[in-house]
Amino acid sequence: MKVSVRVPATVANIGPGFDCLGMALPIYNTITIEETVLPGTGIEINVLANEDVTDELSLEHIPMDENSIIYKAVELLYNSIGQTPSELKITIHSEIPIAKGLGSSASVIVGGLIAANELLGKPADEAALLSIATEVEGHPDNITPAIIGGLTLSSAEEDGSIVSRNLPWPEEWVLTVCVPEYELATEISRSVLPKEVPLTDAVYNAQRMAMFVQAIYTKDEELMKLALRDKLHQPYRMKLVPGFDKISENLKHEESVLGVVLSGAGPSILVVSLKTNLDKVKTIIKETWDELSINAQMYTLPIDKTGAVVIPE
Amino acid sequence: MKVSVRVPATVANIGPGFDCLGMALPIYNTITIEETVLPGTGIEINVLANEDVTDELSLEHIPMDENSIIYKAVELLYNSIGQTPSELKITIHSEIPIAKGLGSSASVIVGGLIAANELLGKPADEAALLSIATEVEGHPDNITPAIIGGLTLSSAEEDGSIVSRNLPWPEEWVLTVCVPEYELATEISRSVLPKEVPLTDAVYNAQRMAMFVQAIYTKDEELMKLALRDKLHQPYRMKLVPGFDKISENLKHEESVLGVVLSGAGPSILVVSLKTNLDKVKTIIKETWDELSINAQMYTLPIDKTGAVVIPE
Repeated sequence: MKVSVRVPATVANIGPGFDCLGMALPIYNTITIEETVLPGTGIEINVLANEDVTDELSLEHIPMDENSIIYKAVELLYNSIGQTPSELKITIHSEIPIAKGLGSSASVIVGGLIAANELLGKPADEAALLSIATEVEGHPDNITPAIIGGLTLSSAEEDGSIVSRNLPWPEEWVLTVCVPEYELATEISRSVLPKEVPLTDAVYNAQRMAMFVQAIYTKDEELMKLALRDKLHQPYRMKLVPGFDKISENLKHEESVLGVVLSGAGPSILVVSLKTNLDKVKTIIKETWDELSINAQMYTLPIDKTGAVVIPE
Repeated sequence: MKVSVRVPATVANIGPGFDCLGMALPIYNTITIEETVLPGTGIEINVLANEDVTDELSLEHIPMDENSIIYKAVELLYNSIGQTPSELKITIHSEIPIAKGLGSSASVIVGGLIAANELLGKPADEAALLSIATEVEGHPDNITPAIIGGLTLSSAEEDGSIVSRNLPWPEEWVLTVCVPEYELATEISRSVLPKEVPLTDAVYNAQRMAMFVQAIYTKDEELMKLALRDKLHQPYRMKLVPGFDKISENLKHEESVLGVVLSGAGPSILVVSLKTNLDKVKTIIKETWDELSINAQMYTLPIDKTGAVVIPE
């Protein structure tokens, strides 16, 4: 038996929403799990990467054995029903750029889990999958939108439960994702964060989060411009993400730009803007990368509203 | 000429919304300003307090001369149009308990400003009044709901501008305000706050703020129970507010209670609950105060949606 699951890329944090906000984008990894016929063949993991978005170096981030995150996730699911995975062939068709802050690890965890859950006859519900996936990933902010799609608010509560909600994203607000050629491992990006922050910065971000949710419900562009600011993670990560400050600076006076934020831990950058004036905004972004001699891909995308889906045979 | 303005009491902070969220309650101060006929009579300020809610000690918090906050606010307004107040008789009919965390100072600032603005022929618009009032009060969180009513989100931005928005409050959610007999000056309550907080606490409150706004838009009771928690100010103020931890503890298992939070800097406490089971909730609160031998008033109130109003002669 064989199951394939298509899982979207995700942008986490989105300005003030460190470890909390996330959204799904229509770039997809497809994870296929096949129960192999011959016993004793063990676990086999293959990655088939789109060479346009993934170089050989990136592939080294993905362990192909039982140390891989996808295997860990699948194993936890099997264990939760008192079983052990023995003979599985896992194939990852990778379209999501790796180590770019676009949720590629969350996508393979989620895809592996959902595929294995199908193979096992769906013993786990969505909450259980969310919980296992978060355990492997460490945070629910990419996991939640990878599973349910759209814009999401999620948090790992102190009692271990994962809280998640879908928020509405105004169709009028366009997402342009910039993916620079350099990589940034999440561990490095996390290591530069301080343990303590000024109370005033904490209050600042709390205000932004309320502004963010109010702005999306009322499509309030002026409020969104204030909401998409952050003092809890971006200022510390700035030096790890060449181009981020320059792009922010160069787009500062564009009326149609609502905000420039890091995607996850970076290095990808998300520009939120109105549809008006989009060509000019993209030209400014392109010229900035050129000026800095950094190769970068740029995608203007709608939000993915579906999340992970099982692909019929 | 004489102008009277009625201004509501306000609850600020509301759990996670330190220096940001506020709501207006239907308890009112009325501020009257009269231009006296005889030149040279100077500034006269009188406070007529409701003895049921205000003892003589509380009245000492209100300077009756040119050092009073109401005079400072009125003076700033006059100055903004190149004038100086000279002969004014200001009367405060005080129904809002003083130094209890219910926005009595914000209400007199707002009332004084709006009354003076009427006397001067309305030179200042709402944004200008908000800005002057915030300058005198220090923060916009009580000022905004005192002016515009309802539930409000506000922030003093770094460029000096005040951002404010009305949020919807579900009619189904009831507000019970407990006002203990002891007082707590805001300066003392602010002095116990740390300059730095753990990043994890900052993230916690940012998540709560997004949950709060999401919960009120979708009337999501389960989410509101998580949203009304706080790690940025209440834990530090707990020891200054006898009764707060005990009431929280005793209401913890009541399904209908969405949250127990400090009103402003305390010592008043706001209990947010459903209408169902309200009598039991109130009995538990009353019994807790009795146990602690603290006299306290308790009001179950709707939200005031109007804010400050000029009372016709």
